[in-house]
Amino acid sequence: MSDHIHTLALPRIRALSPYVPGKPVDELARELGLDPADIVKLASNENPMGPNPRVLEAIRSAARHLTRYPDGNGFALKARLGERFGIDAAQITLGNGSNDIIVMVADAFLAEGRNAVFSQYGFAAYPLATQASGAECREVAARAWGNDLEGMLAAIDGDTRVLFIANPNNPTGTWVDRPNLERFLACVPRHVLVVLDEAYLEYADDADLPDGLDHVARHPNLLVSRSLCKAYGLAGLRVGYAVSSPAVADLLNRVRQPFNVNSLALAGACAALDDDAYLEAGRRVNRLGLAQLQAGLDELGLCWIPTRANFVTVDLGMPAQPVYQSLLRQGVIVRPLDGYGLPCHLRISVGLEHENRRFLDALATAIKEAAHVAH
Amino acid sequence: MSDHIHTLALPRIRALSPYVPGKPVDELARELGLDPADIVKLASNENPMGPNPRVLEAIRSAARHLTRYPDGNGFALKARLGERFGIDAAQITLGNGSNDIIVMVADAFLAEGRNAVFSQYGFAAYPLATQASGAECREVAARAWGNDLEGMLAAIDGDTRVLFIANPNNPTGTWVDRPNLERFLACVPRHVLVVLDEAYLEYADDADLPDGLDHVARHPNLLVSRSLCKAYGLAGLRVGYAVSSPAVADLLNRVRQPFNVNSLALAGACAALDDDAYLEAGRRVNRLGLAQLQAGLDELGLCWIPTRANFVTVDLGMPAQPVYQSLLRQGVIVRPLDGYGLPCHLRISVGLEHENRRFLDALATAIKEAAHVAH
Repeated sequence: MSDHIHTLALPRIRALSPYVPGKPVDELARELGLDPADIVKLASNENPMGPNPRVLEAIRSAARHLTRYPDGNGFALKARLGERFGIDAAQITLGNGSNDIIVMVADAFLAEGRNAVFSQYGFAAYPLATQASGAECREVAARAWGNDLEGMLAAIDGDTRVLFIANPNNPTGTWVDRPNLERFLACVPRHVLVVLDEAYLEYADDADLPDGLDHVARHPNLLVSRSLCKAYGLAGLRVGYAVSSPAVADLLNRVRQPFNVNSLALAGACAALDDDAYLEAGRRVNRLGLAQLQAGLDELGLCWIPTRANFVTVDLGMPAQPVYQSLLRQGVIVRPLDGYGLPCHLRISVGLEHENRRFLDALATAIKEAAHVAH
Repeated sequence: MSDHIHTLALPRIRALSPYVPGKPVDELARELGLDPADIVKLASNENPMGPNPRVLEAIRSAARHLTRYPDGNGFALKARLGERFGIDAAQITLGNGSNDIIVMVADAFLAEGRNAVFSQYGFAAYPLATQASGAECREVAARAWGNDLEGMLAAIDGDTRVLFIANPNNPTGTWVDRPNLERFLACVPRHVLVVLDEAYLEYADDADLPDGLDHVARHPNLLVSRSLCKAYGLAGLRVGYAVSSPAVADLLNRVRQPFNVNSLALAGACAALDDDAYLEAGRRVNRLGLAQLQAGLDELGLCWIPTRANFVTVDLGMPAQPVYQSLLRQGVIVRPLDGYGLPCHLRISVGLEHENRRFLDALATAIKEAAHVAH
């Protein structure tokens, strides 16, 4: 009998490497003795505009009932989502961020003997949730940094139960257009639940990017996952939602933790959904900032991956870690992608004009430093 | 190939009955056309004092950074917990309420072929998390409505990995004293993780109620779970924490969702931990309210179970559902316990003086109604 209870945890859990988030501003400030106000963070695809005043007001009001449990059924938020998107409340599952949705799908559909299909350079939460469930990860080689739809279809077998696909894709920003998505959905066998992760959809204002909700009624095996943490600006509150058939929603609501979305998050989400102006302003900031970043990267002679999201992933053509570390020393946080098998790339979230400028200047310095060290 | 993807979910998930929370005030108001302000809710063991102003201030301040992700490592809150309880940050796992802790333990230690031991009338989250994991539930018959420690020890076998025990127990309010807990911990085999759920500990100001944290250093297989949702008044924010050996905490942090506790919850929890006066005032309100409720129940000739928590469970001596329904019609929400196999009991959370009075009056009416219908 071992003295070490932790050695008796499930082997698949002991083998997990936890998700590595973008470095928090306060952490860098502590480590380098910097003033947090001087740090620019473009590492977590956060909305750079700052909080929506309507959301802040909703939070203030809801806080009066802070000693009460949240409404575990999220009645008001589901009603609001239902109105806005023309869906029934019974089709909705609320998540503590869309990560929670991914975990619930894995809990409900994955286990040893089953497998999940997703793309190389797919969001890190897919392999993590799959591994934690005991199911096999079927990672399909990417095509032009994005989802190879034919390859993903070919990877499906009789034991596949879930296929994760993000549109646009994180961390590469690539996307699947409407005709390709439609053909793909028509080809996925019915025993596979397609999780279409649209966490960044609101940034893609192009008419050719499909809206997953248009396809849920026709495909009972389609689940669309959305987040209010990005374009709606609620990263700190953690709110996501899934839209699926009522039968799948019923299942997810069985594995959902009873009060997974807290009261202030529920109230803030309702207010955020009511404010199209904030969303539109965010899109504009993103469009301009993306153009600024891409032009700046072009000037530095760097290749970047075309993107429909609020971030751009750049190929430095050399190991990214020294450049990342130099940026940190200059008070600029971006996201290294070693964990994704992209050791020469960095992912940069779109910030405000002065933040993007600060990053581009710091990057020029960092690249010079790295070139100097290399010689 | 089925057309119904939901039939392909894991059978153990399809068989789950989701947790039934206390009825929210707004839901009853909608159903009966009542004014929410006229409804008294004594159903979810919530702190009746209303929010702590210090917590509200901390939330207001933290909301300025709402578009930023929470600190996934909870640095500030862990530091505060560490100071307060003399523990190392590496021993702490933060949870989205203590329910999240229970689920993480099940994710890490339970699966098919393993089992978990807990008591009849134990908290509903234990069987739910165990069933969802695929492990066997070993429910041990209660002794005087509480944990039968010897029976629980006898239920352990080589495949047991987790033993859940709440002190005080929810929903019965019973407790284990220090000598019995010490003897028990000494007898639990080392291959079993003891989850000592102290969600209600802060209400038990009796010197003979043990503090689980005193035992963590001596028992590497002990995990103490705590909640800030009750005495600290943060039910709407969802904050819990576990204290264990660093090795067990490291495991739980692997299965923990990266941003499981949101920014406002982290900030509110830090502020709540700083305010002993709120905690002390809550204990006083609870002591007085409990005495008021118990005296009122005595007057009605009803038996209640002795309790060290912020609720009392009463035996109506007849089916509780008609009484529960009558209370609802009178605008008073309490908790029926059919789901716990206690169809003649109701659990009443301690409220403010006028809320307790309103409940007792409504209960007298409800009992008269029920007796009338029975004749």
